[in-house]
Amino acid sequence: MLSLSQTRRIEWGDCDPAGIVFNPRYFAFFDHNVNLLYEAAGWSKPLLTATFGIVGCPLVETRAKFMAPCTFGDEVTITTSVAQVRRSSFDLVHTLTNRGVVSVEGFETRVWSIRDPETGKLRSAPIPLEVAARFTAD
Amino acid sequence: MLSLSQTRRIEWGDCDPAGIVFNPRYFAFFDHNVNLLYEAAGWSKPLLTATFGIVGCPLVETRAKFMAPCTFGDEVTITTSVAQVRRSSFDLVHTLTNRGVVSVEGFETRVWSIRDPETGKLRSAPIPLEVAARFTAD
Amino acid sequence: MLSLSQTRRIEWGDCDPAGIVFNPRYFAFFDHNVNLLYEAAGWSKPLLTATFGIVGCPLVETRAKFMAPCTFGDEVTITTSVAQVRRSSFDLVHTLTNRGVVSVEGFETRVWSIRDPETGKLRSAPIPLEVAARFTAD
Amino acid sequence: MLSLSQTRRIEWGDCDPAGIVFNPRYFAFFDHNVNLLYEAAGWSKPLLTATFGIVGCPLVETRAKFMAPCTFGDEVTITTSVAQVRRSSFDLVHTLTNRGVVSVEGFETRVWSIRDPETGKLRSAPIPLEVAARFTAD
Repeated sequence: MLSLSQTRRIEWGDCDPAGIVFNPRYFAFFDHNVNLLYEAAGWSKPLLTATFGIVGCPLVETRAKFMAPCTFGDEVTITTSVAQVRRSSFDLVHTLTNRGVVSVEGFETRVWSIRDPETGKLRSAPIPLEVAARFTAD
Repeated sequence: MLSLSQTRRIEWGDCDPAGIVFNPRYFAFFDHNVNLLYEAAGWSKPLLTATFGIVGCPLVETRAKFMAPCTFGDEVTITTSVAQVRRSSFDLVHTLTNRGVVSVEGFETRVWSIRDPETGKLRSAPIPLEVAARFTAD
Repeated sequence: MLSLSQTRRIEWGDCDPAGIVFNPRYFAFFDHNVNLLYEAAGWSKPLLTATFGIVGCPLVETRAKFMAPCTFGDEVTITTSVAQVRRSSFDLVHTLTNRGVVSVEGFETRVWSIRDPETGKLRSAPIPLEVAARFTAD
Repeated sequence: MLSLSQTRRIEWGDCDPAGIVFNPRYFAFFDHNVNLLYEAAGWSKPLLTATFGIVGCPLVETRAKFMAPCTFGDEVTITTSVAQVRRSSFDLVHTLTNRGVVSVEGFETRVWSIRDPETGKLRSAPIPLEVAARFTAD
């Protein structure tokens, strides 16, 4: 399965008065890694939407476990991997490690979404084979 | 069970280039509601930590489902309710509605945490009866 | 001149490890007040762009003075007033008070901007009289 | 004068519904560069406060000019330089370039601050010669 790691430094503005990363920031880190994963698959986010005529891959479900706090200056590594690809949705797993220890684990489901030309509303669509192949490649 | 609702307006800075709320912002909204819930229970966050000698109630697990996007200017109502109180942890449920429709549901577990005087590390501690009583009151 | 005040509560996520508001948050507060000011003038931001065919009013210059820090739970009032309206740009002044004391002062210049139909680039355009009248009304 | 450059990629969450960087994010970028500048001077932010017994160097004034917008995926370089060191305050200049073009310029003044042992309030203090020497070194 496709996998992508990035190291980032915890910034002062990522942290709250308890001196630890404010939890919503982890979801922003994860989101950025998803965009890097798309690039690793071969398409930047704008290219992905333009190439396949989708609106995007909105998040429909997310879960996270927080095992240890991170603080200002920590260099953390976030690894995002495709966990499963279904007909029109896919799952990703995020693992954030800090000095070799897993601090946060995330899991999310996204839907391959187009705008229905008749109703104008978002609806799911089949993930193209080409994309599925890249997502599931070793 | 204790419950708290707040209405807030979606700001321009809450939204991303797709014109919808950037998902980490929902977790920031939920976090703020938790602090309002503490107040509704009788203690602001600083008062809670000072009164009971805790470091806080760090998040150990969170889940969310995203059913419909919210956009700039929407007036959303977020209701946060205590779902369960255990010996040293508790669960909260968040429901964000937009024009009467549920847009996001959140669920989280927090741990009543003190700093161990011997090891200096965070560890769970029993939730005081007084707090549990307020959290579970109708 | 048109003026608009809003009270907001400092959230945990607005603050940094020093326990005070992380300075970029003040600019987000000011930005939100600008959008409220547009509404007070008679047009929400989307309505403003749709009605007058502009891309928006991008910020070209900003200044701020920080006199006193704000902390979690503070109820601050932010007053935004039109300071000057020129042919195609206007100045706004922000004053943030905390318990009656001025904590932050902001000043900014925005440009009434359209997309040039020939070059496709942003360029300034004359502020419609109707808008200027509302902005400068007492 | 001491100077520090860092390249960062504009993330999806840095941008607003207009598809450009939400202006408060630039101030967060600048703040992070200031912390990197302290490191380049020889002290991380926590080390700086611990070594010299200061509370920090709070921002008292900031200005910025926005010349061109940045969008998702842009690799921008932010250079932060010491502009002037006075007895108990100093000025920094930030220049953000995007593909070789200056997009944002920032200027700020910070005060070397201690907590007065008698009043408990923040007040300025003389910048140690050792720090001033590093800040003004070529």
